[in-house]
Amino acid sequence: MNIIISRELSIPIYMQITQQIREAIFNGELPAGYRLPPERKLAEQLGVNRSTVLNAYVELKSEGLIESFVGKGTVVLPLNPADTTAASTQLPGYSTPPWRQLFSERSFSAGDPLIRDLLSLSKRNDSISFSVALPDPGPKLTVKLREQLQLLMQEKSDSLWKHTATEGIHSLREAICMWMEKRGIHAAAEEVLILSGSQQGIDLLTRVFIDPGDIIFVEEPSYFSAMQSFRSAGARLMGIPADTDGQMRLDILESMLAKYHPKLIYVLPTFQNPSGLVMNQDVRERLLELAYRYKTIIVEDDPYCDLRYSGHHVPPIHAMDRHDHVIYLSTFSKLIGSGLRMGWLSAPKSVIRQLAIAKQMADLHTSTLSQFLMERMIRSGLLEEHLNDMRNRYHRRKQLMVAALHKYEVPGMTWQEPEGGVFIWCRMPAGLNANELMLRAADRGVDYLPGNPFFAQVPQTAYVRLNFSCAEEDSIDEGIRRFVLAVHDTMDARRYHQTGNRTEGLDPII
Amino acid sequence: MNIIISRELSIPIYMQITQQIREAIFNGELPAGYRLPPERKLAEQLGVNRSTVLNAYVELKSEGLIESFVGKGTVVLPLNPADTTAASTQLPGYSTPPWRQLFSERSFSAGDPLIRDLLSLSKRNDSISFSVALPDPGPKLTVKLREQLQLLMQEKSDSLWKHTATEGIHSLREAICMWMEKRGIHAAAEEVLILSGSQQGIDLLTRVFIDPGDIIFVEEPSYFSAMQSFRSAGARLMGIPADTDGQMRLDILESMLAKYHPKLIYVLPTFQNPSGLVMNQDVRERLLELAYRYKTIIVEDDPYCDLRYSGHHVPPIHAMDRHDHVIYLSTFSKLIGSGLRMGWLSAPKSVIRQLAIAKQMADLHTSTLSQFLMERMIRSGLLEEHLNDMRNRYHRRKQLMVAALHKYEVPGMTWQEPEGGVFIWCRMPAGLNANELMLRAADRGVDYLPGNPFFAQVPQTAYVRLNFSCAEEDSIDEGIRRFVLAVHDTMDARRYHQTGNRTEGLDPII
Repeated sequence: MNIIISRELSIPIYMQITQQIREAIFNGELPAGYRLPPERKLAEQLGVNRSTVLNAYVELKSEGLIESFVGKGTVVLPLNPADTTAASTQLPGYSTPPWRQLFSERSFSAGDPLIRDLLSLSKRNDSISFSVALPDPGPKLTVKLREQLQLLMQEKSDSLWKHTATEGIHSLREAICMWMEKRGIHAAAEEVLILSGSQQGIDLLTRVFIDPGDIIFVEEPSYFSAMQSFRSAGARLMGIPADTDGQMRLDILESMLAKYHPKLIYVLPTFQNPSGLVMNQDVRERLLELAYRYKTIIVEDDPYCDLRYSGHHVPPIHAMDRHDHVIYLSTFSKLIGSGLRMGWLSAPKSVIRQLAIAKQMADLHTSTLSQFLMERMIRSGLLEEHLNDMRNRYHRRKQLMVAALHKYEVPGMTWQEPEGGVFIWCRMPAGLNANELMLRAADRGVDYLPGNPFFAQVPQTAYVRLNFSCAEEDSIDEGIRRFVLAVHDTMDARRYHQTGNRTEGLDPII
Repeated sequence: MNIIISRELSIPIYMQITQQIREAIFNGELPAGYRLPPERKLAEQLGVNRSTVLNAYVELKSEGLIESFVGKGTVVLPLNPADTTAASTQLPGYSTPPWRQLFSERSFSAGDPLIRDLLSLSKRNDSISFSVALPDPGPKLTVKLREQLQLLMQEKSDSLWKHTATEGIHSLREAICMWMEKRGIHAAAEEVLILSGSQQGIDLLTRVFIDPGDIIFVEEPSYFSAMQSFRSAGARLMGIPADTDGQMRLDILESMLAKYHPKLIYVLPTFQNPSGLVMNQDVRERLLELAYRYKTIIVEDDPYCDLRYSGHHVPPIHAMDRHDHVIYLSTFSKLIGSGLRMGWLSAPKSVIRQLAIAKQMADLHTSTLSQFLMERMIRSGLLEEHLNDMRNRYHRRKQLMVAALHKYEVPGMTWQEPEGGVFIWCRMPAGLNANELMLRAADRGVDYLPGNPFFAQVPQTAYVRLNFSCAEEDSIDEGIRRFVLAVHDTMDARRYHQTGNRTEGLDPII
């Protein structure tokens, strides 16, 4: 077994190991029954952390390529399950289907194993998470939701379990128009589509707009999950870079618009994911004007609009649009919790109609109870009240993280303090190995998302995304302390490699 | 304007009219501002029902091609919206995007306008519906659901709004395994994927298994919504015919398996949609054996399994499978109501994993509250109790419909009494015009689904699907009476056409 790892690649080392073992199994180099070296031994030989090898083995096991047996170690499984000593219940001559070969092409492009694998990294029990933004509604909201649900069961007991129109309950669509008014958006109920979470919005837009080969412009960096969805439909993504203030380079955008004809421009102008920054009003206006001029459309993803802690509200691009060039996507998940599965989309009627056909095929309609409950929360004013609580809570957490980042300052690490949203986007000191940082942070008991998957074209490993809204207040300082320790660990290890056994990383091993 | 209609085609006449007007608009024959003849006049000229023309105009309006103005009649709109007298808010030189041109190719293949249009047919206020199967939980279940929801809010108040794993809550997956045990299926929780309704199951299977050009075998007839989903992904559907008892022709299946290599065989073996029939145990076993031999997989869609009113339980194919060749799909929607959006899928672990990746992209996870509530309903035994109620209720309705079909007998109309499920599938007397029947039934105040869209290959207009589970008990007799009157109306009209002005239908008409 000949494994070569390179620390220069943007591919995490555990994936480099996974890929090479997988290839060796497929090309027959490692036959069924071959015993792989124990994790610890392979880790020593490759000069990597043991958890790196562990992660590679976990991936290969989940793919059904290897298995660990007590007393026998980790062995390569037969590629064709028919070769195994068949279970006694099986009819002679038959075997389970070769599932891998049956899966569609796009089902492989769909999954980004990196993020899933990172999230499944073995963590310490006391680990502090700055990775995913899954809010906790808190005890106060829980009580309110319970009360509203009680009332709902009395008032709507008949219709609570029945189907609704695919587009959603009309009175909820009206309530959402009221909610959008506060953002400066004037839309009619017929221009609103209720979604089972905003992820579904991305999915439906992908179905309805993207043909293989279509070009999509995105901000560089942008939300990885949306990019993943576009890519899975065969779209070609092109990233529009930002200037040093984080504002979109409109000059570059314009020359790219003239050259390529993108199907759409996907942006998150307010408290962007991952950068946390806000697109200036002036830039929004010129972006919209360019969309008009080059006859393309804008998809504005706006989950964090209501979460501003300082500065002034900048109206959504959708609010400025006079020629129906914007499809607007938003959600209540960041306010109430992901469990409700509720989001919405605002667009011209003809677009809503086409998206509703796609939604009908996807899930017929959104949970009736979630729809009625959300309508009550908006109309009763409880959502507004709760939003004020959340703003205070998240603002406090942001301040705690900002304070901790100052306190445990790392030379060469830069970041911009956001005015809202839930993320701080940090640029790490030059030359730091992102994958190693990831594993060392896990060892130290803190997690976050690495910046790499947020880039559409050129992967940049220098960034990390820290979520401040979901960690407990009293753990934020400690979390940042651990993170900074992990940074130092990684810098020290690098120095060691550079002075000591640096060449080893590129040598063929075993 | 030169419209030719043919009663020999399987395409409904209103769609023939729609298509020809649409073409004339696109090729410039009918320019912007052209005034279309009034509905009544065109109907007279074409010798069709006025509602037929009405439906064509409604479709063209929804496509934005024509519009009716008071005092001006129905006129053709400009193809390029920029040509219109622009709204005063619009910037000079810009117009709304040409949405139709931006939609993806598959978004057009997705929608079946026929069914949607039929459902939106203008109906009488007192119309009785035998068309779609959307159950009403009834007051007894509503009380039970409310009680369980109360308990849930006390016990799980913290986790009710939070996210869950994409695969679903583990304890619910276990409860579903218990539920499947009663059907004879032994599965582990890890082999179960929670769905946001069974429509999502079809959608995820389409994503994960179907590449353009793949061949899918289906029963002839089969569930149109599943076929529509497969087709939208570019699959080629091939129908396996049944013998006179409604049993799949395995001899034909085998020769087709040898010739084509289908990606999967999609079947609804129990109380099939639309036929209502049950595949014999013997046929199931031989079908499974053929799947083993020809190395293909079976997707078993089983929404009606628990709704047997007479005869003996036949185990699902999934229960007989010894080599993991069956993906099993089921739902609680037919028991509780569509509002919960809850279904499930049982398959080998490696398939669940791939489907979960697709589900993550589709909607992250299913409503947390729906999941917890369903778990309580199963574990408390309330679902079983409710199922017994539903069986009695549906059985009674089936008997009422069967009695009415005997009472208002139509010579030449044949049907088989089902032992369960929710449908009766009727073959109409030879030569009856299905589209005319549809409109005349709407006039009489009854609706149903026409058989046409349930056929994969050769459309057969001779069938209608009657749902008996959702109409009020005291309306079933009257509904069938109206239906039979509509049949007679259509037969009379046909006789009139045959004797009188039969040739007119194929003449070019202005």
